[in-house]
Parts: sequence; C-alpha cells; structure tokens
Amino acid sequence: MKDVATLRANGTRLWERIMAMGEIGETAKGGSNRQALTDEDRRGRELFLSWADDAGCSVRVDEIGNLFVRRPGSRDLPPVLIGSHLDTQPTGGKFDGILGVLGGLEVIETLNDADVRTEHPIEVAVWTNEEGARFDVAMMGSAVWSGAMPLDEARALVDRAGVSVGEELERSGFHGPEPAQPFPLTAAFELHIEQGPVLEDAGITIGIVRGVQHMSRHRIVVEGQECHAGPTPMNLRKDPVMALARFLPEVYAIAEAHAPEGRATVGFMEARPGSGNTVPGELEITVDLRHPDAEHYQAMVEACETAVTEACSALGLAVTQRRIWHAPGVEFAEPCIDAVREAVKITGHDAIEMVSGAGHDACNVSKVAPTSMIFIPCRDGISHNEAEWATEAHCAAGADVLLHAVLEVAGVSPA
Amino acid sequence: MKDVATLRANGTRLWERIMAMGEIGETAKGGSNRQALTDEDRRGRELFLSWADDAGCSVRVDEIGNLFVRRPGSRDLPPVLIGSHLDTQPTGGKFDGILGVLGGLEVIETLNDADVRTEHPIEVAVWTNEEGARFDVAMMGSAVWSGAMPLDEARALVDRAGVSVGEELERSGFHGPEPAQPFPLTAAFELHIEQGPVLEDAGITIGIVRGVQHMSRHRIVVEGQECHAGPTPMNLRKDPVMALARFLPEVYAIAEAHAPEGRATVGFMEARPGSGNTVPGELEITVDLRHPDAEHYQAMVEACETAVTEACSALGLAVTQRRIWHAPGVEFAEPCIDAVREAVKITGHDAIEMVSGAGHDACNVSKVAPTSMIFIPCRDGISHNEAEWATEAHCAAGADVLLHAVLEVAGVSPA
Repeated sequence: MKDVATLRANGTRLWERIMAMGEIGETAKGGSNRQALTDEDRRGRELFLSWADDAGCSVRVDEIGNLFVRRPGSRDLPPVLIGSHLDTQPTGGKFDGILGVLGGLEVIETLNDADVRTEHPIEVAVWTNEEGARFDVAMMGSAVWSGAMPLDEARALVDRAGVSVGEELERSGFHGPEPAQPFPLTAAFELHIEQGPVLEDAGITIGIVRGVQHMSRHRIVVEGQECHAGPTPMNLRKDPVMALARFLPEVYAIAEAHAPEGRATVGFMEARPGSGNTVPGELEITVDLRHPDAEHYQAMVEACETAVTEACSALGLAVTQRRIWHAPGVEFAEPCIDAVREAVKITGHDAIEMVSGAGHDACNVSKVAPTSMIFIPCRDGISHNEAEWATEAHCAAGADVLLHAVLEVAGVSPA
Repeated sequence: MKDVATLRANGTRLWERIMAMGEIGETAKGGSNRQALTDEDRRGRELFLSWADDAGCSVRVDEIGNLFVRRPGSRDLPPVLIGSHLDTQPTGGKFDGILGVLGGLEVIETLNDADVRTEHPIEVAVWTNEEGARFDVAMMGSAVWSGAMPLDEARALVDRAGVSVGEELERSGFHGPEPAQPFPLTAAFELHIEQGPVLEDAGITIGIVRGVQHMSRHRIVVEGQECHAGPTPMNLRKDPVMALARFLPEVYAIAEAHAPEGRATVGFMEARPGSGNTVPGELEITVDLRHPDAEHYQAMVEACETAVTEACSALGLAVTQRRIWHAPGVEFAEPCIDAVREAVKITGHDAIEMVSGAGHDACNVSKVAPTSMIFIPCRDGISHNEAEWATEAHCAAGADVLLHAVLEVAGVSPA
C-alpha cells in the first residue's frame, strides 16, 4: 500500500480551472452570473463534464439535474461523495460552490496522477440550483435528492419570466434518467469558502465545520398612532419607534448573553409613513437570530419575543411577531469531522473548529449520509458578491484537506 | 359707550360658513382639497369675498395674492389684523386656516349685528399658500408680506406640473396692485385649531398661545459594512443598527430630560440594503427636536448630537449629522397674549396657556407687529387629514375669545 500522506493537490490546476469556470457568465466587475439552468449554467456544467471525462469518470444525471461523476473504487462499496454547486447569484463570485465541485475533481485528478486506487468509489456531485436566485428555493437539487422536497414541486418552480424548472431541465438537456433519491453513501464532504470573516480575522487556513447553526427570521410589526411631531406631547404619543428604543438594545444584549456564537441581525426596518415631521403610526422590522446550540437558540428566540412584547406592552402598543423563516441547526457526523481533523494533521495546515452560519447542500446530504464540511477563508468575509475572493494557496490547502479526509474514509487499495 | 362684555359670536352662522367653504373642493372622505391658487382656492376666496362684501367691507389684494378685507374704525388708526388662510392640503380638513379667516369675518359680522363701532379698523387677512402643499414653501404669502421671502422668489416657485406662482396669480385674478409689504398694525391675532391633542386631552376649550416652539430636523447617516447575517460574528460586524440601539434610547431620554415640553421624533428610518439576512451597511434616520425654550432646545440638540457621535464612535462607525430644517421659536407679544387672557375672563371659557408645536402665518406677522394666537381643540389632535374635525361649540367659543381679544385692543367707539 502506497504512502499517501505526502500526496498534495495540484493547486495550479485547481486555480486555473476555477478561473476558467469563472469566465463563463463573467460579469463586468469580475464575478460570475451563472444562474441555475440558464445557458451559462449549462456551459459551466459542460466544461466540468469535459474535465471529468478527461479524468476517466463516468457520469449519471438524475431527474432534477443533479450530476454525479464517479471514479471507481477497487471494491463494490458505497461511494464517498464530494458535492457542491456550479450555479451562482446574478452578481455572484468565482468561488461559492465552484471551489467545492472543482476541489472534488481535483481530488480525483490528484489520485489519478499518483496512480492511487481507493477501495470506495469517489463521486463528485453537482447539485442543481443551490443559490435559489433564479428559482426561489435554495439548495433545491440536494433537497429533492434527499427527500426534503417533492420532485414535482421543484419542477413546478418558475422564474420571473414564468419559465419552470421542469421546462429548463428539458431545454438544457439535464433532465436525467436517474431517480432523484438517495443512494448508499459511505460519507460526504463539502469544501466551501467560509462566507464570513472568522478564518481571515484569525489568520487560519482551514475551518473544521462541526455543523450549521439554528436560524430563524422574525417579522415584528408594531402599531401606533400617526400624529404631528410638533403639537403632540411625548406622553400622548403612541409611537412604535419609542418601543423600538426599548427593545432594540435588548435584541443585541440577547446575542451578547449567548456570545460568542449568538447572532442577532435587524436587516430590515421601516417606520411608516416615513415623514420627518410625523410620529410614525407603524414600524416593521425583521430580526434574524442564530446559534449553533439548540438550547441557546431557543432561549434567544424566547428572550427576544419577551423583550418585544414587554416594550410594546409598557407603551400600550399592539404588536405582532411572526417567524417567517426557520432552518433547524445541523450537527455533522462525528466520523466525518474526525476525518477532516485527521486530514488537517496530515497536511499540517492550521485549523479551527467552527459552525457554519449559512446553509449548504451538505445540510440536505447530512440527513441521509454521514457528512461534514471544510471551510477556507474568503477576503473580508464577502460572498454573494462580484468582489468575492479566495487565494490560490487557500484553495489548494482546502483541496489538500478534502483529499485526505476522503482518503481517510475511502480507504487506499493495496494494489 | 356700549357694554360689549355680553357680545357673543353667532356660532351657527360661523359653522354654516365653515361647512359651506368645505364644500368647495370637497373630498370623498369629507375633507377639502383647495390647494393654493387652484380653481378651488379661487372659488373659496370668491365665496369669502362675497360674504365680506355683504358685511360692508372694503377689499385690498397685494402682489402675492394676500387679501385684506376691512371694517373701518371710528378714528384714523392702524388696524387690528385677524389673519389665517383658506388653502388646504390635498387631503386636508375643513378647519385648518378656514376657522381663522371665517372667525375673523364672524367678529366683523357680530360687531355689525350689534352696531358696535371700534376706534381701530379691523382687517381680516387671507394669506396665500400657507400649506406649501402645491408650491413647496409653507406660509408663503405671509413670508413675502413680512419681508422674510423675496417676492420674485415666491413668484418663481413651481408646482409639479411646472406652473409658477406668478402664472397662477395672473390666471386666478389674485395678482393685486398693493405692494406685498407690512403696513402699520395695532395688533394681530390668529384663531386656529390646535392640531395636537393637548386641549382635548385636558378637556379645555381655549388655548392661550404664548409662542411657537423652536424646532429643527436632523438627518443622521451611519455608515457600516454590509455582510451576511449568518457567518459574521457580532464582534466582527460594523452594524449601523447596533449604533442605533445605543443612541435611540438616548434620543427619547433627552426629550424626557426636558419634559414636559421637549419633543423628539424619529419619523424616518431606513436600514440599507434592507434584506433580512444581511447586516445593513448604512442607516439613515431623521430626528425632529422641539422645545419652546431656546436654552432647553439648544441643550437637546447638543445632547442628541453627542449621543449619536459617542454611540458611533464606540462601534468604530462613521456618521454624518446635518440639520436639514430649522425654524427658530417665536415668543408672541405680551400685550396681545394679555388681550386673549382678558377675553377668556370676559367670555368665561376655560383655558390653558400653551405653546404651538407647529408654525403658522402668525409667526411671520409677529416679526412686524404685536401678535398672538388662540387655539381650540380638534378631534384626536388630527390635522392635515380629511378626518380633521372641531365641534360647533368650540368654533363658536374660539370666535368669542377672538372677538373680545380684538375689542381689547381695537377700542370701542363711544358713538
């Protein structure tokens, strides 16, 4: 059996492919626009498949357009899956999703170059419509495949022009014959840019991702009484913004009370009618709450609701609070996290353990197979933006860790 | 010399005229739309002038369309002026301005009915474009007349269709020959609905208005760094709304520290880009600050600026604060306030002393002549709204107090 510990990905090849992929649908500011099932997405997929073909892989396409390219193993065992996506936001970057797919292909290429056979087959998955930008459901392909979303429902989704996923699957030629449903997997990994500033800020190369935080978004509408800012004394007002002044500090205090992992974001706020000399009659805000630990998360949600209720009650204002979005947290599989830990040791990269703040295809995959993720830093933590960037060295390091995590579970064949 | 103490306005006549005026430009919800120098405004003015003519008054019209109808006095003395306006907001009410003009005419009618001559002439002024709704300068006619605004500047103002004040003065026939400039006045009064809830809340009929509060509006823009709400830890954020959480409670605490007259209003607030899962990169709010006392007002402005600066500085966020509007406070003339106090005693109405929260034509007039105002309650404090309402009894009481305040300074002729 070969000593594979010294094996390293070809960082130059990986980088050149990321750049080549980024030229398809390239935007004015150097980002990419390859929204799901557009011609650009099709061209990106075709480029990937041509590389996979050159690497000797076989291809399967399922009913929702998910691609699986396979490098055979030495034994008839369930494959190790490496998956991510090639579609982008309308003004997306070159790395989000792409790194995970091309990093997976790089694992296969590196094993080919070194003539290393694994016991388990290795498959690279390209999940359809992860971004949910054109068809408004994120992680769609992996959701259908894992059973979280019915196939018919996904096919019926339409873009703003009224064109459906089903129609675009036929048109693009990516409506495959394989059923969109789970098949046995030994393990699954996803390599991704962090999309946050933690690794960059800490000067660390690798994030060992233990899971995805619990998250939900809440719409809060406070009703008051519109009146003239001049003649109306403070004690006769029904001002929803005065309620905000009471509960807004509480929202951030709640995140602080569950630091360092608790997160609270007020992304939308509007006082109506929005005239400078009118006391607002209505206030609407959204509060986004996140924490990796279920108990902490639940405590945050409850504390926030209480703070809002009490502030409004103290001022005699009516309030409605509604959870408009919820994604339960995910805990990745300990054996997969261990494989990444081991890969970090083998490659010698510095790493920290962390939790993802955003959702990924790996969340869906983790419902049917042992799964974990690997993060690398991205510049200023920026993503979903043409300015999204990662360094060649970090991409290569990520591919190295992915390679060795895969080898940990795929087993090296003695042949 | 007649005993005039028992004289009372004819409340029924006043009410019927208010209702008749309200029918011109009447809106679906029972308000009025007689924006300045429109055909509706012209018809309202013509109706008023026909009543004034019937009451034996002479008429002068000045270059900016201000109307002055005069009941002669027994001696050659400067007149006592009663002024307000007949124009309305697009969805205005039946009382704002109209009460002051028709209340003035009612004073003349009551004196006619009782055959009472005054030593000083009495004039009722109709100021052009008080609302600033069609042509965007409020209190325009009285501003030009008092010298606060050049005539040419006012004539050059255009509405949204590009039609100028000058053109509409010609078209409507209200471009008069009299120079728009002050003439000697003994005193001036303005009767108006309160446009706030204080009198109604206290169950009081008359407000003896001592002046108008100092007021200004401030635009505050806090710059942060947009980022993803999920992956970005709280301590690595540059979130302008977190600064708001620090200074917003301060804004209201400042009003409270200068209670009961201090007022603070955050009428406009917007977090950008306004997406629920994005930490905002920019926050814009307006803060409207008011207080009748100059020192208190100034202290409020400074305390607010400091609170904002300190909150943003603590979070390392850039902020710009700009005063976008300022109306210095007005202290009405003590002899005129005294005349109203005396009129309250004579008529026996319950009254409190107060300060106006909004600007009025009387503010401009007060710069060139001794002036004060009289308020009556309006329902729920609502104004600039089709729901604006005052009772017949309160309108009559206001006219009674106006009548006797005028008599205090106009002097009753022995003849």
